[in-house]
Amino acid sequence: MTVELISIGTELLLGNIINTNAAYLSQKCAQLGFSMYHQITIGDNEARLHEAINTALQRSDILILTGGLGPTSDDITKETLAKALHREVIMDEHSRERIKLYLHRIVTDNKSIPTGLAKITENNWKQALKIEDSIVIDNEYGTAPGYIVEDGDKIILLLPGPPFEMIPMFENDMLPYLIKRQDKVLVTRMVKTCGIGESTAETMIIDLIESQSNPTIAPYAKGGEVHFRITAGANNEEEAELLLNPIINELKSRFGDNIFTINENETLEEVVVNLLNKHKLTLVTAESCTGGLLSGRIVNVPGASETFMEGFITYSNNAKRKYLQVSPHTLETYGAVSEQTAIEMASGALKASGCDVSVAVTGIAGPGGGTVEKPVGLVYISCHLDGKSFVIERHFKGNREKIREHSVIAALDLIRRSIIEIYG
Amino acid sequence: MTVELISIGTELLLGNIINTNAAYLSQKCAQLGFSMYHQITIGDNEARLHEAINTALQRSDILILTGGLGPTSDDITKETLAKALHREVIMDEHSRERIKLYLHRIVTDNKSIPTGLAKITENNWKQALKIEDSIVIDNEYGTAPGYIVEDGDKIILLLPGPPFEMIPMFENDMLPYLIKRQDKVLVTRMVKTCGIGESTAETMIIDLIESQSNPTIAPYAKGGEVHFRITAGANNEEEAELLLNPIINELKSRFGDNIFTINENETLEEVVVNLLNKHKLTLVTAESCTGGLLSGRIVNVPGASETFMEGFITYSNNAKRKYLQVSPHTLETYGAVSEQTAIEMASGALKASGCDVSVAVTGIAGPGGGTVEKPVGLVYISCHLDGKSFVIERHFKGNREKIREHSVIAALDLIRRSIIEIYG
Repeated sequence: MTVELISIGTELLLGNIINTNAAYLSQKCAQLGFSMYHQITIGDNEARLHEAINTALQRSDILILTGGLGPTSDDITKETLAKALHREVIMDEHSRERIKLYLHRIVTDNKSIPTGLAKITENNWKQALKIEDSIVIDNEYGTAPGYIVEDGDKIILLLPGPPFEMIPMFENDMLPYLIKRQDKVLVTRMVKTCGIGESTAETMIIDLIESQSNPTIAPYAKGGEVHFRITAGANNEEEAELLLNPIINELKSRFGDNIFTINENETLEEVVVNLLNKHKLTLVTAESCTGGLLSGRIVNVPGASETFMEGFITYSNNAKRKYLQVSPHTLETYGAVSEQTAIEMASGALKASGCDVSVAVTGIAGPGGGTVEKPVGLVYISCHLDGKSFVIERHFKGNREKIREHSVIAALDLIRRSIIEIYG
Repeated sequence: MTVELISIGTELLLGNIINTNAAYLSQKCAQLGFSMYHQITIGDNEARLHEAINTALQRSDILILTGGLGPTSDDITKETLAKALHREVIMDEHSRERIKLYLHRIVTDNKSIPTGLAKITENNWKQALKIEDSIVIDNEYGTAPGYIVEDGDKIILLLPGPPFEMIPMFENDMLPYLIKRQDKVLVTRMVKTCGIGESTAETMIIDLIESQSNPTIAPYAKGGEVHFRITAGANNEEEAELLLNPIINELKSRFGDNIFTINENETLEEVVVNLLNKHKLTLVTAESCTGGLLSGRIVNVPGASETFMEGFITYSNNAKRKYLQVSPHTLETYGAVSEQTAIEMASGALKASGCDVSVAVTGIAGPGGGTVEKPVGLVYISCHLDGKSFVIERHFKGNREKIREHSVIAALDLIRRSIIEIYG
């Protein structure tokens, strides 16, 4: 089955909002095994929407339309689809009742709404209209219902645009409906690596990528990490697993400890926090050029507070001396961005905090501050644990933010590798 | 002039990445006064891309294509466009030389690449091919050049997919090229506010929004900030300014000190760093629930190192006592998330660091840790300077990340307001 996405809203064409719905729905459709070949974004314009619907009906089995279901005269999705299908729109009493209740609740709950704005306007009832012979899906988080329209062998889903209304409606009502239409089971696994660049990673398995059919292997880079999505189609889950396992084992043998997880939903920082928790280790950070970003990434993991106690942001040399006891001799002889300073930052943080593991980052994020010997992008990262000291040198490309992002990933990766090296 | 966007990449159709390029380019085109009616997303498939290009050439004046310029056999944008325009692709020696230098630098810089993988692979040269009679645009942050192709009265821009390569190329080379094609002058101003919610902000100027024609006013919320884009169209810049000034003055009088800048490119953290620099003040941070995110945001401002010296991430109570001298009595009586703890964290950080200004954040980001008295989302922020102490209490909604993001914005805003209060 092929599926086509039509996102409707002039705010998308003006770039006022980012279309996260498209990524969300694409992911869901891929997991369902539907093939998506086209995504269209169009404004609140009847002629162009009509044309897009007609084109999509010709080439795709399932159409998913988001947006344009609101109460204003700009909202024309339902009306335009009805015309394209030569159907009428009719009042749906159930929706009318729900909208009445919903608006009444909002108005009485929110005392800050000026009284003049509190009345239900006539165009709210527009949202209670439905295309004839369509299935109405209640909206738990807003007034615009969704719709499922079956037309011959075509299926058209209409969803509201705001993600916090769209996502629960899709998950609760549209997804169970679509699952029944699946041709076959598609099972995907994600192999996530770090420490190797995208093209290097691809080159390492180019033979597998070139000979792929089922399962398929799709690589993509994500801020210093390279992920491989392995997807197998089969009649049932067990069959799919049998197809997936040999490929995953092959990737494991080729990428070795560059793989940090094969769990789609697990991030690198979660892997690190889980490793720390598993070995009951506490962590302290000492950041110069990343200035808190590394710590900020770690605290985003729920439960990080069990392992991450404290951190130092030592941007100035003075702070490096004062809190981390980096020696003035080291700073003078080797400079703040050096292997030696990184090592002393990590060991100083360990001593000051009494934690089990420390990580330190010092580098030149730019745009200023680079020299011929120490160019922008030069970063040293050190990790100390169990009396051992690890240190790496990296040269990252890109702007200030990019260099920082790569530094954070490299630091997380160094903690991971160091713990595995010591504790297995 | 009409413009159409074609985003190319199977990873978009699979939902592996969110298409932020589309929003960015749409915004830029809107600012240029171009009308965008269609955005298309398509996979790495020659037939469908060919069809999309043909359709776009029929209905739009300018085509912007992003993605599919990489070195692999999947990357077919350039080749497919050449076919659609009945042109050849030819070797561009300048690009070939640049790619050689770029890859050589990466390989020699990165000692961690295994020697077997360090050679430049044959498919890298594919990126040096150009469509005949096209203008090659150097890529400062990657190997894939961009292209400007003129075909009769049509203009086609080709840009690499990764945003950190695409954006600088667009800003530096494509934008100046497009500006020359503008029909009329469109001048926009951005009025950025923080400290008030989106619906409140909109209600405060609903009369202006409803009566808008030229200039137009477009509000949008961005992680705790509300921005208003004011756009005037005119024959020349001076005329546009005359239209803009009265509206901007009106917004200033309504929003007062909630406005932190009217400079489109200035962020809240830049405003804060500039204020600190202006008054020659040094800053220290003390973060609990934001765990480094506030500091990370500040160091992203180039030149932050002149004012931001050091920071403490005191996630544990022990760290709050040890580095910030928060009294055990305070922690026991009022708890780690309290006005008193926030104030003591800020004053402790000031003393320990010897800086002029301190800011402290403590709160409950969730998902765990909330109680009836202290629910998830409760955050206290304190700022100390010049012997004065400011403290605010906030209740934020949303998930862990959202609550942290709002906390960071509120902390930056408190520094801003405190400095203005003391130093004017």
